Amino acid sequence: MKRILIIGIGAGNPDYITMQAVKALNRTDVFFLMDKGQSKDKLIDLRREICETYITEPGYRFVEADCPERVRGDIDYTTAVQDLNRDKQLTFERMINEEMADGEVGAFLAWGDPALYDSTIRILQAILASGRSAFEFEVIPGITSVQALAAQHKVPLNRIGKSVEITTGRRLAAGQASDADTLVVMLDAEDSYRTVADQDVDIYWGAYLGTPDEILISGKVAEVAEEIERVRKAAREANGWIMDTYLLRKPSHI
Amino acid sequence: MKRILIIGIGAGNPDYITMQAVKALNRTDVFFLMDKGQSKDKLIDLRREICETYITEPGYRFVEADCPERVRGDIDYTTAVQDLNRDKQLTFERMINEEMADGEVGAFLAWGDPALYDSTIRILQAILASGRSAFEFEVIPGITSVQALAAQHKVPLNRIGKSVEITTGRRLAAGQASDADTLVVMLDAEDSYRTVADQDVDIYWGAYLGTPDEILISGKVAEVAEEIERVRKAAREANGWIMDTYLLRKPSHI
Repeated sequence: MKRILIIGIGAGNPDYITMQAVKALNRTDVFFLMDKGQSKDKLIDLRREICETYITEPGYRFVEADCPERVRGDIDYTTAVQDLNRDKQLTFERMINEEMADGEVGAFLAWGDPALYDSTIRILQAILASGRSAFEFEVIPGITSVQALAAQHKVPLNRIGKSVEITTGRRLAAGQASDADTLVVMLDAEDSYRTVADQDVDIYWGAYLGTPDEILISGKVAEVAEEIERVRKAAREANGWIMDTYLLRKPSHI
Repeated sequence: MKRILIIGIGAGNPDYITMQAVKALNRTDVFFLMDKGQSKDKLIDLRREICETYITEPGYRFVEADCPERVRGDIDYTTAVQDLNRDKQLTFERMINEEMADGEVGAFLAWGDPALYDSTIRILQAILASGRSAFEFEVIPGITSVQALAAQHKVPLNRIGKSVEITTGRRLAAGQASDADTLVVMLDAEDSYRTVADQDVDIYWGAYLGTPDEILISGKVAEVAEEIERVRKAAREANGWIMDTYLLRKPSHI
């Protein structure tokens, strides 16, 4: 039987890696690397660096595959991701069938945690359901950018006894976020925090969290929204890419 | 200056600890141990075990303090936690002022992640705001039971482009949970999943996640609610305590 590990390697700081992930890296024969877009080279380098740092015995190998890109523009987001995942599924299937021998261990390295806004679990479950490939798999959790954000700003994610909603910039902009006491927004390409700049809300924003390029800004969203937008734009231009996330919270009246 | 580290040591599996946390443990002179209730001895043993496993140089010390217990029963939950945190604040303050020398590093070890349903960050911020103690502090994130739950069930936390709300059993039972596509329920002492047993909802439940005692049950909540309640009761009686969490999700229609 083949065995696949989906290893969460944390978001940003290489020290976010867990002992469980280190042990998983050391069990792996073949690493599947699939990155995309402008951050691709940097992301692949970071993965190789993590392998070199934490794997004690050489003998592992890398298999790189071109990662299909999501179609952008005039198409529904969910449909676009589903189409992308179907393409990815074929790529994953081919890699598992052709690039691994029986008894070997293959691994996908996921930024942050494989369970949060990552499709690898979903794709492997779909491959198993299709019956076109047989393997066992394990999921190894990792520190997410949500946790990095809270840690670096030194704020709790939740208020006492209250809820936290993790959502997307797209949903926030579309007015689909809930009335939760705390909102954490991920995958925001459009500065959607501006849509709540007229409300009495605190924002804790972070980019490149846990890395030497980390930027943190916090305050009343009405007061810092412009600064975040300016800093974010400049950082994206300077680095060629940006990964950011933020927490929005109504002020406490208790 | 004194320095305090709030170190997330992960939920359950000792291998959930991060390299960042291991480095933090090794910087620490004095560990403050504060546990409570029936699981106290087990939790303190686990913390000591983590220190013994990961600290390479001896020379650190432990300071144990009795942890005030939250008043239960006929009192509002938030008020009870706030009262508790005021008591804790005095205890923390005393320990920081009396049990550490200038230039030393003290640490609190938090189960899971210090930012999620843990009051240590809030208490240290309150001490600093009071001006009665001076120190710097850092937060080191850790793997939460939410992430352990998703990993062990091998399910994503979110659906594509959808939200996840992390909430409490108390809020679910009170009908205060949002309409989020996925709900993750923590701190549920009352089997509150029974309140949605009449709905078409999938549940992924886990207890003692990441430990040798781990129990996983999943299915339609209407079909497995009684089994979870029975298993949960028996496990709590057998172990003297239980830590469990679960994910609720409406079935996909896409």
